[in-house]
Amino acid sequence: MKIVALAGGVGGAKLAHGLALTLPPENLTIVVNTGDDFVHLGLQICPDLDTVCYTLAGLDNPETGWGRRDETWAAMRNIARLGGPTWFNLGDQDLGTHLERTRRLQAGQPLSAITRAFCAAWGVGPVVLPMSDDPVRTLVETVDEGILAFQEYFVRRRCEPVVRGFVFQGADAARPAPGVVEALEAADAVIFCPSNPWVSIGPILAVKPLQAIIAAKPVWAVSPIVGGQAIKGPAAKMYRELGIEPSALAVARQYQNLLTGLVMDEVDREQAEAVRATGVRPYVTNTIMRSVEDRKALAEEVLRCCQ
Amino acid sequence: MKIVALAGGVGGAKLAHGLALTLPPENLTIVVNTGDDFVHLGLQICPDLDTVCYTLAGLDNPETGWGRRDETWAAMRNIARLGGPTWFNLGDQDLGTHLERTRRLQAGQPLSAITRAFCAAWGVGPVVLPMSDDPVRTLVETVDEGILAFQEYFVRRRCEPVVRGFVFQGADAARPAPGVVEALEAADAVIFCPSNPWVSIGPILAVKPLQAIIAAKPVWAVSPIVGGQAIKGPAAKMYRELGIEPSALAVARQYQNLLTGLVMDEVDREQAEAVRATGVRPYVTNTIMRSVEDRKALAEEVLRCCQ
Repeated sequence: MKIVALAGGVGGAKLAHGLALTLPPENLTIVVNTGDDFVHLGLQICPDLDTVCYTLAGLDNPETGWGRRDETWAAMRNIARLGGPTWFNLGDQDLGTHLERTRRLQAGQPLSAITRAFCAAWGVGPVVLPMSDDPVRTLVETVDEGILAFQEYFVRRRCEPVVRGFVFQGADAARPAPGVVEALEAADAVIFCPSNPWVSIGPILAVKPLQAIIAAKPVWAVSPIVGGQAIKGPAAKMYRELGIEPSALAVARQYQNLLTGLVMDEVDREQAEAVRATGVRPYVTNTIMRSVEDRKALAEEVLRCCQ
Repeated sequence: MKIVALAGGVGGAKLAHGLALTLPPENLTIVVNTGDDFVHLGLQICPDLDTVCYTLAGLDNPETGWGRRDETWAAMRNIARLGGPTWFNLGDQDLGTHLERTRRLQAGQPLSAITRAFCAAWGVGPVVLPMSDDPVRTLVETVDEGILAFQEYFVRRRCEPVVRGFVFQGADAARPAPGVVEALEAADAVIFCPSNPWVSIGPILAVKPLQAIIAAKPVWAVSPIVGGQAIKGPAAKMYRELGIEPSALAVARQYQNLLTGLVMDEVDREQAEAVRATGVRPYVTNTIMRSVEDRKALAEEVLRCCQ
């Protein structure tokens, strides 16, 4: 069974890792959100791509949820001493990734080719692709502070401003990265990892040619909302600020036209029939991934749903 | 007594440190070669400026002669794993300097202002200035490999190619950095630190407006050639390849029109009268700086010569 998984940050990376532990590498392609990407200190930073690749390579930092394991911070300490910007923290090993990626981009290599090369160097088996080699930038429309670039909202303002919408700048013109359409066309099913529907899966679906191809496939999503809360990140807060009660049902409704089924947590079992009433098949299980075994177990269940 | 010192890399930084330990900070300006500067991994690297500033701040690495004390190498290890360029090594703390400098340059700050701000942050007392905020690039004309950019010759090719000349690209159009002309005009004497005459002091003197101002001042140089050898670096090799026997006398002849006197090592005492015959006053002493005390002692002797 060939699978394409769409993923954003930490939650998406965990399920992607479970899928990588379960499927032969040639049967899995992971398409990653690049709407969070930005240039900082002259470096091209791709937070979701790095989180997914580091997690699949076993290089991820389980304490922070971003960056590298056993990280050091000498460069940022020196930047701080020089009065430079410290609101976006970058570790020393992680800086190596950004420096080499930026060098290759400036030499004309596309992000997808760079990501493939990095995955080969890190021993990552499945193909990991950015949704597009063209720039797509997530902008957050806020009630009180106007439009914020994503990292300004997410890191510098710690998701505090009240949101009223999102813009995926460049998405209309963005072409899917080489390999994305081919992988989707060959896929037996598509999995939406438990990533933020608004700002992780949303930007991928905003790349125009992708939605029609995905709509023709069996699609299973794993709800990132459990017991009315996001495991990590601002998804639940975003739902509330947009006037929607955060719930597995809300996730099912948001993806409704695309979904075959929704994997939802035990604690939300009472929403299963309401999900079914929207035309989406519910599957109830434990979706919290505390250990690597949890990732693999959830991946196996989601794959059984897809069969 | 107000002093301007011209300096390049390690030897120049050591004497500059000695001068900084001897003179009140407001009486010393150090003008540094930027002909070695280059862009690598998207970063603006200024090797001589960094060596001088790190040395004055006590942050220098005494083992390597470049970069930072107690350095770590996590970023470069990751770049190496990703197949990136490793011929020019950059430590993690040092990367912080290059990242913040590059950020400020891209934001429109001139190199001289950035250097002043960095020196303030590092607690460096004397004013340290690049010779120019405009780009001057030292090119090495070689017998067998054509023209090489300085770091290609110096680091990647380890000074192996035989040289036949040097070009200071951009020097004709380069304006002295703000503060350089003012410091020279106010100076009671100018000191050429024991840096490479060809590729450290040479590029500074190639910035057109400087030579005439310097020629009107008492100028003392410290010979970087001791016993026919350079303490560090390719100066002696360059003299030989250009058909000149490397010696203190050769240094005196090279700077002849500008020099009041030459501080030369005890081992070269027999050349003193030949130096005097060129119209340059010789002063013979121990010029090898093994310790911080040596730096201070030599600085005190050079300053006495200038009086």
